[in-house]
Amino acid sequence: MRRRVLYIEPAVSQHVDSIKGYLSQFKGPETDLEVTCLTEGPRHLEYYSYGSLVVPKILKIIKEAEKENFDAAIIGCFYDPGLRESREIVEKLVVTAPAEASMHIAATLGQRFSIIMGRSKSIPLMRENVIKYGFQDHLASLLPIGMEVLDLQIDPEETKRRIVQAAEKAIEQDGAKVIILGCTHQFGFYKDLQDTLGVPVIDVALAAFHYAEFLVDLRNKHGWYFDKKTEYQSPPQEEIEAWNLSDLF
Amino acid sequence: MRRRVLYIEPAVSQHVDSIKGYLSQFKGPETDLEVTCLTEGPRHLEYYSYGSLVVPKILKIIKEAEKENFDAAIIGCFYDPGLRESREIVEKLVVTAPAEASMHIAATLGQRFSIIMGRSKSIPLMRENVIKYGFQDHLASLLPIGMEVLDLQIDPEETKRRIVQAAEKAIEQDGAKVIILGCTHQFGFYKDLQDTLGVPVIDVALAAFHYAEFLVDLRNKHGWYFDKKTEYQSPPQEEIEAWNLSDLF
Amino acid sequence: MRRRVLYIEPAVSQHVDSIKGYLSQFKGPETDLEVTCLTEGPRHLEYYSYGSLVVPKILKIIKEAEKENFDAAIIGCFYDPGLRESREIVEKLVVTAPAEASMHIAATLGQRFSIIMGRSKSIPLMRENVIKYGFQDHLASLLPIGMEVLDLQIDPEETKRRIVQAAEKAIEQDGAKVIILGCTHQFGFYKDLQDTLGVPVIDVALAAFHYAEFLVDLRNKHGWYFDKKTEYQSPPQEEIEAWNLSDLF
Amino acid sequence: MRRRVLYIEPAVSQHVDSIKGYLSQFKGPETDLEVTCLTEGPRHLEYYSYGSLVVPKILKIIKEAEKENFDAAIIGCFYDPGLRESREIVEKLVVTAPAEASMHIAATLGQRFSIIMGRSKSIPLMRENVIKYGFQDHLASLLPIGMEVLDLQIDPEETKRRIVQAAEKAIEQDGAKVIILGCTHQFGFYKDLQDTLGVPVIDVALAAFHYAEFLVDLRNKHGWYFDKKTEYQSPPQEEIEAWNLSDLF
Amino acid sequence: MRRRVLYIEPAVSQHVDSIKGYLSQFKGPETDLEVTCLTEGPRHLEYYSYGSLVVPKILKIIKEAEKENFDAAIIGCFYDPGLRESREIVEKLVVTAPAEASMHIAATLGQRFSIIMGRSKSIPLMRENVIKYGFQDHLASLLPIGMEVLDLQIDPEETKRRIVQAAEKAIEQDGAKVIILGCTHQFGFYKDLQDTLGVPVIDVALAAFHYAEFLVDLRNKHGWYFDKKTEYQSPPQEEIEAWNLSDLF
Amino acid sequence: MRRRVLYIEPAVSQHVDSIKGYLSQFKGPETDLEVTCLTEGPRHLEYYSYGSLVVPKILKIIKEAEKENFDAAIIGCFYDPGLRESREIVEKLVVTAPAEASMHIAATLGQRFSIIMGRSKSIPLMRENVIKYGFQDHLASLLPIGMEVLDLQIDPEETKRRIVQAAEKAIEQDGAKVIILGCTHQFGFYKDLQDTLGVPVIDVALAAFHYAEFLVDLRNKHGWYFDKKTEYQSPPQEEIEAWNLSDLF
Repeated sequence: MRRRVLYIEPAVSQHVDSIKGYLSQFKGPETDLEVTCLTEGPRHLEYYSYGSLVVPKILKIIKEAEKENFDAAIIGCFYDPGLRESREIVEKLVVTAPAEASMHIAATLGQRFSIIMGRSKSIPLMRENVIKYGFQDHLASLLPIGMEVLDLQIDPEETKRRIVQAAEKAIEQDGAKVIILGCTHQFGFYKDLQDTLGVPVIDVALAAFHYAEFLVDLRNKHGWYFDKKTEYQSPPQEEIEAWNLSDLF
Repeated sequence: MRRRVLYIEPAVSQHVDSIKGYLSQFKGPETDLEVTCLTEGPRHLEYYSYGSLVVPKILKIIKEAEKENFDAAIIGCFYDPGLRESREIVEKLVVTAPAEASMHIAATLGQRFSIIMGRSKSIPLMRENVIKYGFQDHLASLLPIGMEVLDLQIDPEETKRRIVQAAEKAIEQDGAKVIILGCTHQFGFYKDLQDTLGVPVIDVALAAFHYAEFLVDLRNKHGWYFDKKTEYQSPPQEEIEAWNLSDLF
Repeated sequence: MRRRVLYIEPAVSQHVDSIKGYLSQFKGPETDLEVTCLTEGPRHLEYYSYGSLVVPKILKIIKEAEKENFDAAIIGCFYDPGLRESREIVEKLVVTAPAEASMHIAATLGQRFSIIMGRSKSIPLMRENVIKYGFQDHLASLLPIGMEVLDLQIDPEETKRRIVQAAEKAIEQDGAKVIILGCTHQFGFYKDLQDTLGVPVIDVALAAFHYAEFLVDLRNKHGWYFDKKTEYQSPPQEEIEAWNLSDLF
Repeated sequence: MRRRVLYIEPAVSQHVDSIKGYLSQFKGPETDLEVTCLTEGPRHLEYYSYGSLVVPKILKIIKEAEKENFDAAIIGCFYDPGLRESREIVEKLVVTAPAEASMHIAATLGQRFSIIMGRSKSIPLMRENVIKYGFQDHLASLLPIGMEVLDLQIDPEETKRRIVQAAEKAIEQDGAKVIILGCTHQFGFYKDLQDTLGVPVIDVALAAFHYAEFLVDLRNKHGWYFDKKTEYQSPPQEEIEAWNLSDLF
Repeated sequence: MRRRVLYIEPAVSQHVDSIKGYLSQFKGPETDLEVTCLTEGPRHLEYYSYGSLVVPKILKIIKEAEKENFDAAIIGCFYDPGLRESREIVEKLVVTAPAEASMHIAATLGQRFSIIMGRSKSIPLMRENVIKYGFQDHLASLLPIGMEVLDLQIDPEETKRRIVQAAEKAIEQDGAKVIILGCTHQFGFYKDLQDTLGVPVIDVALAAFHYAEFLVDLRNKHGWYFDKKTEYQSPPQEEIEAWNLSDLF
Repeated sequence: MRRRVLYIEPAVSQHVDSIKGYLSQFKGPETDLEVTCLTEGPRHLEYYSYGSLVVPKILKIIKEAEKENFDAAIIGCFYDPGLRESREIVEKLVVTAPAEASMHIAATLGQRFSIIMGRSKSIPLMRENVIKYGFQDHLASLLPIGMEVLDLQIDPEETKRRIVQAAEKAIEQDGAKVIILGCTHQFGFYKDLQDTLGVPVIDVALAAFHYAEFLVDLRNKHGWYFDKKTEYQSPPQEEIEAWNLSDLF
């Protein structure tokens, strides 16, 4: 039974092809992968307001993905924008995202993890998500490396150098047993870092990709799916029509 | 020094006039109040996805309100949709919302509060907001009364009867010292309920309104305003222009 | 409707006039302010035992204030001594205090705050109050500057220099978004510090003063007042008389 | 090495002799016990304000006890009034109290405990103490039996009947493994209740008495005593004299 | 790349064949499954002491499994006995267990879950594991159905009837969005229950099985494996030999 | 009434005599002390797997100790291995251990404590125990000094020098008011350290020893003993016989 997975860059992105190539190396034999991005809007989501702009656009893509019989969609940003909204409007599509996926994995591999990110601006929202997902006791620290998201791939060696510096602080002083690279734009760095640091280093795009495959299998085999009875109950079709929301739903 | 306050019904609403009349009874002598609502979109926000649809529309109104020299804007829904996004895009406008305001007040009046809402669908998001605002230890219980938001004002006596029943459970069994009416559509009921129950009953639209006046005074007198240095730092104008986000900002 | 507010220095104080002048600059047009202090007892409350000595004296002043038809009383010390005891013995007087007021304000302006105080002796009680009021998740750090309370106003420039040093540590390393000056004797410093630091800096005497005005308005307009049903239920008059406690009550 | 222990009824009490007889049955061979009470003031401490009135009187007794070379003093009320203030003004006297002592014991005997008390008025302060002492995760429930403190010994069978009813609820529904009788006026009931219920039932006066003996031994043998370096640092003698606080200290 | 998985019944068990048949229906195309059990010792682990007896036996099996080039081992009991000990003594074998696996899955599918178990004796250890894994905020309730572990499969209809009763209480009163069947001996029931209840019902043996497959893929593809640097560092070979522990390791 | 106490070194140990001599200096006049250790197995428990190997051996000693009418047994390792298992298999023997005992004492003497240990390998299990016992809010920090357990007594001056260095960091930066020497192999150091540091320094072997005496007295005088009704309910004799577990029990 094949799994059709859609990875959504929830911003205008130049990385669609590279992400596709990157993830495809690691996909299971039964997985088909497509990658898409937004055609207009912000190019990163480092501001709350940018994040809110893209959620309606993400929902359109999600709705379309369900119609096209995708099995899973990944919202490819570590803030997990629109995750619960997406789960609400679908009936069988699995939706997941990098922060959720990587924290579940990291908490399994060691007692505490640190998240390394570009700028300190991100800390309040990341901390909030850590708490929202219930991983507060697993959090060792949140460490910024003083770089803009869009600059992370410009000089990979410099980026890696700064991540190593932050990660060593996390491991030695904060008690981190696992490092999470808290931005999908840090993709591709984890292997080298893992060799250097000697602890698991989680690439969050990969984490979300494999978590999506895992959740699809659970759904297919056991019917384990998001609680549609109350928490993710879909809005009623009559309201959507009566209020002309159908453009979206 | 006058305070110009804009109350936003963040949905298509038929209550603009009644809300305006209702709040105006209680405004301070230096306060000017206007009430507005969305012109298209959902009529309530009982679904995550509805909530995300209205945030970009709220941001437009917020941006406009700042240009028109309002001092404060209230996002009039107990889910506080778009609160932090709004604070990010403004430079001097005070923005607040009912859940934040009423929890601060309730936690001052007694050790623990219960929140009474229409449907159990709302519980996960409300619990999340309680935790996000840090009031977890003050929460006695979250109690639904089995009514749709849009039905709360249809038969006020029935609504009040159900609220009393839930509130008595909250006070006697859950240890609530204060009752929060967890939906702006429960406006107008608190006085009667307070007389019946003998404990403070918070009308969340009024709570937000007075909290807005309070925060404006703090800003005007002392420059106490949201942290614009990192947490609510505004997105850079160059990005907004380069990426054609100016429709919104 | 005028608001009559009594600010109590809950110790023998030489700052009654300067506090009155200081707060009066910022009072609302409908507010009348009086300031008083103890006539005997300790001059600061840096010891638990000093704090307990003054509570009965505070209660006398509170009782008197209610008889004289004040609307609000502020217990002007960041330890909030006698706050709940005072709320218990009054029937309509609003009572508030600096720690409560400033933490509500700070938690509204940013995700986390740091409290800067004179000596490390104060930390256990301050931490306890942070937890008691439910702001544990909002606490970034508690930072002493190595000065006695009574010395804070002697060389204001030195005091400010040390506060800036501590606050910069709080902002850069501990993730503070808001600074609370955790002693009423730091009054008058916040504006300069705010300009220097670029984040909100809360003067706790001012915070309590405005919170008192706010709570009076809520009481006057909506009857929102401390839970007198159980938590702040007053002791019975018969007991007070039978046991000769009337000197106090 | 003998241990001289002073049990203080921190209110005007008619139970001095019966408490002395009661505790004496259980004292160690090296323990001398005296019991005292206040000579004026309230007869119970069910109100915050009553509690604050007696603390200065407790401190006088504590200071005197240290001068008379007592080894330990117990502040015999489950609210533990004046506990930390007392520890601050002494140099070698051990001071403990029923809530602290009984929670340490209960948390050792089973995962979670319930506290049974007279009236629901007590719940907020008891919950606060549970949190202050760090036993929040061990708390199964706080259950009132609808009786005034001074009535608990009037009809012991009725009191025990109500306690059994509450305790059975605690054990069966709330998951309590240990029952704490949350008022020193419930003294003498625990044995019968323990036989009936089949789980440990803690008499809090006895708990405090034995904890005092235990802490004296730790002090005598190892010098383990309250942190006098910062947390319980005593106020300076010069201040006490200069400010005429010597009546107390 | 095939995955060889060993499922260990960590007790003397008559269910080896039925578990193997049951799990095999759901295994991935690349998975080979073997099931084993203990040859002597207890038949269930409802007592702490039984649990401790089997851990050394589990470690032997684990060590053997690594030598035989299994990719993963599952310790098939909801108490997850010996989980961290096992991870410590292996170098590349993935080890997981039902409680860990099912809580990660349940927390992904809905905000809060309830765990349904045989007897209330199990509650303290289950609560402790919930906290240890960091899922405290996701726990709605722990509900026993009054049955011995070895009786759960005797009259499946009666067992299911009791589970439904407990689960309905969990969903309606405790706010559970997902039900975890907190014993591997409840295997086979989840599908019917899921149909009846309308929310996800997690079979914990299946959860562990799929989590094992997932973790093997993460290890194989990315080298993401338990932190062997400090937390799960293996004991040194010299010590094992010098102290004659080699029977085990 | 005499108290017979058995101190168990839960590993192969060369310190049996020195521990006996050390503890005997401090025993009460009614206490008889014996010290034993394992005859085969590991010499320290710095690995999870070592810890699990010794628990069945500890249980045998515990069972024997109950038969020989000891009043208390102490499991002399700061990880408290087998503590709850032991409590389950006994009917009247008091069992305690160093981590439990020392944290109760430390939390009584000051608001927060730091634990100083040999290696960072120990931190995850120690943190877990702190949380399990409910002392999370009392924990200031966990600080390793970079030494193997078996080396702690080799050069006592060097060990003490490193402890002082860590403790000063704990006191000045982390806010510790009490220091716990988190390994029984640090025995004998506390007095000097206490003199140097000026805060209470807890020797955890002594803490456990006195806590055992204390718990025996509570059992003898009041019948306060571990909850045998559910949490520590003993396994049924029929099962033990039927399954040939009698070698152990």
